[in-house]
Amino acid sequence: MNKIIVVGGVAGGASAAARLRRLNENAQIIMFERGEYISFANCGLPYYIGGDITDKEALTLQTPESFHSRFRIDVRNSQEVTHIDKTNKVVTVKNLKTNETYEESYDKLILSPGAEPAKPGIAGADNSKVFTLRNIPDTYKIKEYIDQEDVHSAVVVGGGYIGIEMAENLRNAGLTVTVVEFADHVIAPLDFDMAADVHNHIRSKGVNLILKDGVKEIQNSGNKLKVLLGTGEITADMVIMSVGVRPESSLAVEAGLSVNSRGAILVNEHMQTSDEDIYAVGDAIEIKDFVTGEAGYIPLAGPANKQGRIAADHICGINSSYHGTQGTGILKCFDLTIATTGITETKAKQLGINYEKSFTYSNSHASYYPGAVGMSIKLIFQKEDGKVIGAQIVGYEGADKRMDVLATAIRAGMTVYDLAELELAYAPPYSSAKDPVNMAGFTAENVLTGKVKIFHWHDVEKLPRDGSVNLLDVRTELEYENGSIDGFRHISLDELRDNLSELDKLKPVYVTCQIGLRGYIACRILEQYGYECYNLSGGYRLYHSIFD
Amino acid sequence: MNKIIVVGGVAGGASAAARLRRLNENAQIIMFERGEYISFANCGLPYYIGGDITDKEALTLQTPESFHSRFRIDVRNSQEVTHIDKTNKVVTVKNLKTNETYEESYDKLILSPGAEPAKPGIAGADNSKVFTLRNIPDTYKIKEYIDQEDVHSAVVVGGGYIGIEMAENLRNAGLTVTVVEFADHVIAPLDFDMAADVHNHIRSKGVNLILKDGVKEIQNSGNKLKVLLGTGEITADMVIMSVGVRPESSLAVEAGLSVNSRGAILVNEHMQTSDEDIYAVGDAIEIKDFVTGEAGYIPLAGPANKQGRIAADHICGINSSYHGTQGTGILKCFDLTIATTGITETKAKQLGINYEKSFTYSNSHASYYPGAVGMSIKLIFQKEDGKVIGAQIVGYEGADKRMDVLATAIRAGMTVYDLAELELAYAPPYSSAKDPVNMAGFTAENVLTGKVKIFHWHDVEKLPRDGSVNLLDVRTELEYENGSIDGFRHISLDELRDNLSELDKLKPVYVTCQIGLRGYIACRILEQYGYECYNLSGGYRLYHSIFD
Ligand SMILES: Cc1cc2nc3c(=O)[nH]c(=O)nc-3n(C[C@H](O)[C@H](O)[C@H](O)COP(=O)(O)OP(=O)(O)OC[C@H]3O[C@@H](n4cnc5c(N)ncnc54)[C@H](O)[C@@H]3O)c2cc1C
Ligand SMILES: Cc1cc2nc3c(=O)[nH]c(=O)nc-3n(C[C@H](O)[C@H](O)[C@H](O)COP(=O)(O)OP(=O)(O)OC[C@H]3O[C@@H](n4cnc5c(N)ncnc54)[C@H](O)[C@@H]3O)c2cc1C
Ligand SMILES: CC(C)(COP(=O)(O)OP(=O)(O)OC[C@H]1O[C@@H](n2cnc3c(N)ncnc32)[C@H](O)[C@@H]1OP(=O)(O)O)[C@@H](O)C(=O)NCCC(=O)NCCS
Ligand SMILES: CC(C)(COP(=O)(O)OP(=O)(O)OC[C@H]1O[C@@H](n2cnc3c(N)ncnc32)[C@H](O)[C@@H]1OP(=O)(O)O)[C@@H](O)C(=O)NCCC(=O)NCCS
Repeated sequence: MNKIIVVGGVAGGASAAARLRRLNENAQIIMFERGEYISFANCGLPYYIGGDITDKEALTLQTPESFHSRFRIDVRNSQEVTHIDKTNKVVTVKNLKTNETYEESYDKLILSPGAEPAKPGIAGADNSKVFTLRNIPDTYKIKEYIDQEDVHSAVVVGGGYIGIEMAENLRNAGLTVTVVEFADHVIAPLDFDMAADVHNHIRSKGVNLILKDGVKEIQNSGNKLKVLLGTGEITADMVIMSVGVRPESSLAVEAGLSVNSRGAILVNEHMQTSDEDIYAVGDAIEIKDFVTGEAGYIPLAGPANKQGRIAADHICGINSSYHGTQGTGILKCFDLTIATTGITETKAKQLGINYEKSFTYSNSHASYYPGAVGMSIKLIFQKEDGKVIGAQIVGYEGADKRMDVLATAIRAGMTVYDLAELELAYAPPYSSAKDPVNMAGFTAENVLTGKVKIFHWHDVEKLPRDGSVNLLDVRTELEYENGSIDGFRHISLDELRDNLSELDKLKPVYVTCQIGLRGYIACRILEQYGYECYNLSGGYRLYHSIFD
Repeated sequence: MNKIIVVGGVAGGASAAARLRRLNENAQIIMFERGEYISFANCGLPYYIGGDITDKEALTLQTPESFHSRFRIDVRNSQEVTHIDKTNKVVTVKNLKTNETYEESYDKLILSPGAEPAKPGIAGADNSKVFTLRNIPDTYKIKEYIDQEDVHSAVVVGGGYIGIEMAENLRNAGLTVTVVEFADHVIAPLDFDMAADVHNHIRSKGVNLILKDGVKEIQNSGNKLKVLLGTGEITADMVIMSVGVRPESSLAVEAGLSVNSRGAILVNEHMQTSDEDIYAVGDAIEIKDFVTGEAGYIPLAGPANKQGRIAADHICGINSSYHGTQGTGILKCFDLTIATTGITETKAKQLGINYEKSFTYSNSHASYYPGAVGMSIKLIFQKEDGKVIGAQIVGYEGADKRMDVLATAIRAGMTVYDLAELELAYAPPYSSAKDPVNMAGFTAENVLTGKVKIFHWHDVEKLPRDGSVNLLDVRTELEYENGSIDGFRHISLDELRDNLSELDKLKPVYVTCQIGLRGYIACRILEQYGYECYNLSGGYRLYHSIFD
């Protein structure tokens, strides 16, 4: 295994090559990269367009030269591997500068070719004013077009991570921006209910957000583009297509390596493909979902880097394994932080998992210390044992922290009972004595142990308004007057005990408050007075964010 | 169990009382608090003095009235429980406003009396210009003294959490501040090596920090105080004594409940004292150290709150247990964040644990995205299995996040190998594709699996300077010229392979770089060329922070 070829010189490829060299000083390591740049910060590209990152050089962590002088890696950029001959262990390479083609033999081959922007079959998508964003040349193209042409408006097609990042950055660059998303909410790893706050925030930043509609066609219209939707049309100077990515696996397919139906390369836990001398990592591969054990596709930089390291280890005789991807992701969306880990409720439902969910809303740090801001946490957990299988957070300061705690908890197989026990770092500038994660744990625990029965925002509409049930709002009078759920009458929590006579004990009580806490206390009171009682999880705050 | 008495109306006591009511609407619950205020934010008090918190009301989360209207708890503030008659299950109460004394029977009793500032036997410590800080009256006293008298300078005795918070807040209030700490470093849950950056930071803020010295006596000196140290003296307008706290357990002792030699009340995992009808929680009790299983004393708000909830549960027939305190703590020290969890190296050594440690230094988020700042992480882990037993972080943005991840990891019993695998949330504003916690994991893993041998800052002095070993600095020439370790010669990493002839292969090589990363790569190279090689963990950065 003295000659190792790496295809792709960025996250997975460069990580593998660097680790290979550290493990084996004597191997011959050749890293092929089709593009001009290696080791670049894909994830930073939108911020160069928006102007947060101004230094072009900041976008590349290594150059072919620096990578060679540090790691003695033979970096061949602007060279594309066009064919793999598994039998003879030879790749064919095309030098894109000279157009020459040559062969290079290998003992072990690592593929980290990444993923390419999906191109839905939209008529006119090949217009030169329609852009996708994957690499540095794409970035310069977009930036130059904005800087040099008379560009005022953009349509972003697709409300995923990259689409939303681009919407923010195009706004920062001074453009009018419309986002068109086919689903009922942006950011697929969020459930619809948690996306409501995101929609409100995006719109508050002046972005025109169109949901449940798709682009049918893109036409030239004078100097501009006319973007035809299912209903209506938008005129803009440019379009960013960001409707997801697909594994760039044609090389692997053509070589006869096993891929799944979406074209993602199949690998074992050591990152070996169906040919044991060929490894594959990163956005090109199918992963095992850490939570469900199912096959999945989750193209993220952290996993790509780690998989590259594992492939290198295994080639060098170290028995490292990859244990799956849990889909921990995060996104800055203007002032908001959106973070997810594990599976969504939608997914849990699809899989027929016997799950429950909880919604809590907590301060980033002690409310009495200046600057505390709220965050929403949705937990998805198994009913039988309380095991946490998914979490979503939308908030500001400290949202990323709680997500990393929850991601770690899921990795450790923790339950909501464990979350209640976590001993997290508390001082007023950082958290509360009961951290938001503890609170989420307490709240879920109370549901599982039967301290409180809950109902959800999607149950509200179905509740009878004919007097056959009690509908109760226990917030303060002022809160109630500022907006309430249709049909819910008001008795504030602190007056509840003195006004029990107003509630018919023979009829169940559905309680709401602002976030769920007072409703929980109300339910505890009512239940002990013999009422059948249900608390609205997430309270009026969540309900209002979804429906109003 | 229909009549429950709670002694102490703040963190542990109020939490227990609130949970009790939620679990049992019918119980009679009386909460005694000696002071005027209940449910106050002990942890926020220093920030009221410093001016970050300006609203007095923000300091109390509940008043006796609000607590009664919400929870129907009979709050008796300004009333002290002076005696417990276990046999007859009766407490004696003194109303501090009327001086009346009366008895109250109980079915179950919960003690959460907290801890009082330790008062070392320093002559003159009873001077009216010497203050301690535990509650709201203490806070007002200090604040009024500063605001109303001609106060310009203060001496803080003790460099623990409260001492350092007070130093910062007194600076913010415009005072000249000296901190006197008896040990060789502030913040006992930090090891000496990690405290070095803290010392530098505190001094950079204009605080006069005196280590390894104690206060012998405090004398009046005109309008001022003269504070006599082992060596020298300081003149100041006031002194804050913050040399730790001791369990306020005289009531329990007098009642014949079991306590340890320091006076901390002994409890079982359900928080029951030696009398099964009497529970104790919070700063008054001995805890089980989660990491070592040993008995310990860790007075923190998170544990107090959780223990209160557990006691309430158990009284109401729920089998909740407390599984120990791991000592997760955090402190804002001017711009710096200092956070710890698990045991220190000092402790690991005392216990004879076969441990190793690693030092890493990582950016808070991707270096190419604006605003990234560095943080130091020290990991302490068992050699045989890699289990993480302690962690310390000193940094800025994002230090709290990594501490909470590590605290969760310790709770889950994770190893450094698990840290390397954690899938944490990455986008450029929040982290790097390899999070600082992953990096700490990789680095420790490489040590344990023998990829690299390390030496530590405390080994440097002992290294022979007689040519019998190679001492090598692989940073850039510029870095080297700006400061290096005595006796270390320079060959930059990228030139190492071409200059091997300059290193004698028969002699071991001790390598340093800036933080340990390049030294590690150098070691990997050298070892494969047949050198015996050692990398300085934490590199010149750590060494320099300690020695220069
Ligand atoms: C705009 C943008 C923002 C992103 N933001 C985030 C984020 O915030 N967080 C996150 O976790 N992830 C983010 N990602 C995803 C992340 O960048 C990828 O998961 C990661 O880069 C995948 O690594 P990889 O090595 O598989 O592929 P890549 O990093 O894409 O590298 C593959 C390389 O292989 C080259 N190549 C392909 N085929 C050949 C061939 N035949 N011969 C030679 N070279 C070839 C390509 O030119 C490419 O440079 C973002 C991606 C983009 C595009
Ligand atoms: C200035 C300061 C800053 C702090 N900062 C932090 C921090 O940042 N993070 C952290 O985790 N912890 C911090 N702490 C510690 C934290 O406040 C305690 O761990 C926590 O309050 C302990 O709760 P407790 O219920 O045991 O005691 P306490 O909260 O102290 O409450 C005990 C109460 O019992 C009353 N009492 C005592 N005896 C009797 C009696 N016989 N009869 C009636 N009443 C009685 C006392 O008056 C007192 O109000 C800080 C403490 C202080 C003083
Ligand atoms: C940077 C890049 C070339 C990889 O290089 P790398 O050398 O593996 O990674 P890093 O520079 O982060 O260093 C990590 C190594 O240093 C070690 N290390 C880090 N800090 C250390 C310290 N203080 N002491 C000792 N070792 C340390 C780690 O253990 C790890 O080595 P290992 O893998 O052998 O265990 C590759 O990740 C890359 O091209 N990244 C940019 C592209 C990208 O990731 N894009 C997507 C995100 S924008
Ligand atoms: C505030 C105080 C009175 C305790 O009151 P509490 O009611 O137990 O605590 P909180 O208001 O934080 O609410 C927690 C409860 O609400 C529930 N809850 C929180 N958010 C919820 C939501 N969205 N939906 C449903 N329930 C929710 C939790 O499950 C928990 O109830 P449980 O213990 O029955 O499970 C007490 O902690 C106190 O006095 N604190 C100040 C003193 C102090 O802690 N000092 C040290 C730190 S400065």
